[in-house]
Amino acid sequence: MDLPRDEAQHLFRVLRLKIGAAVRIFNGRGAEFDAAVATASKDGARVRVGDGCPAVTEARVAVTLAQAVLKGDKMDDVVRDAVMMGVAAIQPLVTARTEIALAALERGHRRERWQRIAVSSSKQCGRAVVPAVLEPCTFADAIAALRHQASEATSGSARPGLLCVEPTASADVIAMGDLEVEAPPATTIVVGPEGGWATEEIAAASQACRLVTLGPRTLRADSMALVALTALFTRWREL
Amino acid sequence: MDLPRDEAQHLFRVLRLKIGAAVRIFNGRGAEFDAAVATASKDGARVRVGDGCPAVTEARVAVTLAQAVLKGDKMDDVVRDAVMMGVAAIQPLVTARTEIALAALERGHRRERWQRIAVSSSKQCGRAVVPAVLEPCTFADAIAALRHQASEATSGSARPGLLCVEPTASADVIAMGDLEVEAPPATTIVVGPEGGWATEEIAAASQACRLVTLGPRTLRADSMALVALTALFTRWREL
Repeated sequence: MDLPRDEAQHLFRVLRLKIGAAVRIFNGRGAEFDAAVATASKDGARVRVGDGCPAVTEARVAVTLAQAVLKGDKMDDVVRDAVMMGVAAIQPLVTARTEIALAALERGHRRERWQRIAVSSSKQCGRAVVPAVLEPCTFADAIAALRHQASEATSGSARPGLLCVEPTASADVIAMGDLEVEAPPATTIVVGPEGGWATEEIAAASQACRLVTLGPRTLRADSMALVALTALFTRWREL
Repeated sequence: MDLPRDEAQHLFRVLRLKIGAAVRIFNGRGAEFDAAVATASKDGARVRVGDGCPAVTEARVAVTLAQAVLKGDKMDDVVRDAVMMGVAAIQPLVTARTEIALAALERGHRRERWQRIAVSSSKQCGRAVVPAVLEPCTFADAIAALRHQASEATSGSARPGLLCVEPTASADVIAMGDLEVEAPPATTIVVGPEGGWATEEIAAASQACRLVTLGPRTLRADSMALVALTALFTRWREL
């Protein structure tokens, strides 16, 4: 089979693989195969696909990271870390205190950039599944989607999301260590921007999300997703 | 009381605080006080110390992060994140695959730089305790110190450390989620460099450390400390 154009370029120009070289290829949806380079030139590359081989196991719980877009290129690292920790999907959010508009994200082709990062991170960490980076949306739309999801579910939690907040944000805040030990089939963890949440956002989210805290110390905005995902996966025995 | 020179400069030049401005000061060993600016000029600053006030609670388990020195300035972020997660101390390590020598770290005054980062991170995250950044040492010395510590202890684990390894490193690897639920009074978590551990290092460490894994996916070296600390603190209900 022919490799996609950018992978062919990478194989020929960067890795400089010759005919016969052993490679592993994956389809981004969980299947991985041994393969050998059949042709490789500046015009493209073709591989002979061999046997299927075991990829890194995916987490049993499908976690979507809904992350408020951070300043500069900090989202790049968040996407990279989230893929390596094993998220199922990433939903970039524009919130009350996000400093970039949806239109600007679109003009800058940011989603496409983050999706490319997700592909390369999957390769690096040995996952055969590439998490989808979804089209950026507003916080309100994300909460509406979670509420809809809750109303569709015949059983399960009325609040399928988890919103990361400071311990003092509300009387209803629970610690990560107080989450149920049994993982749900799926959840969405919602992480805010540098400036945190507006009070109205916390109120609006409470209809679809439980409020969770990552402890008493203030974390950097660009570390929060990794800490939150690690805490969830530890609690649910995925680590 | 007079503020230390660099804090005085920060107060006068960066924060531009005037006489009477309310500040909080802390002694780096757990005590925090309300205070008011008494004098502030380019030559120094003096504050009137008021009542003690509650600082962020410290973790009940004293975790030392023993981290192999990473390339470039990646250690800066590791120190920052570790302080914010609540470590008690940081021990920089030179291991078989660390790409910088002890002498070069000393020449570059790297320990002093990391200690300054620890001070500013403590301020940012609301801790009144500044974790010590210890003098860099070799991996062998760190393991010897852990063995000594174990031999001194009248009770408790014969292996006081936890070495982060890949799941396939040994038959004795345990998952973070399989650690005891009860936190020990203290532990040392040992994290390797970009190139990982040499086989001999894993063998040598096993006398003083249990081998723990952070899951099947490959993490970036500069994320490992944060993931390991989060997993420990989640397991031990500090988050």
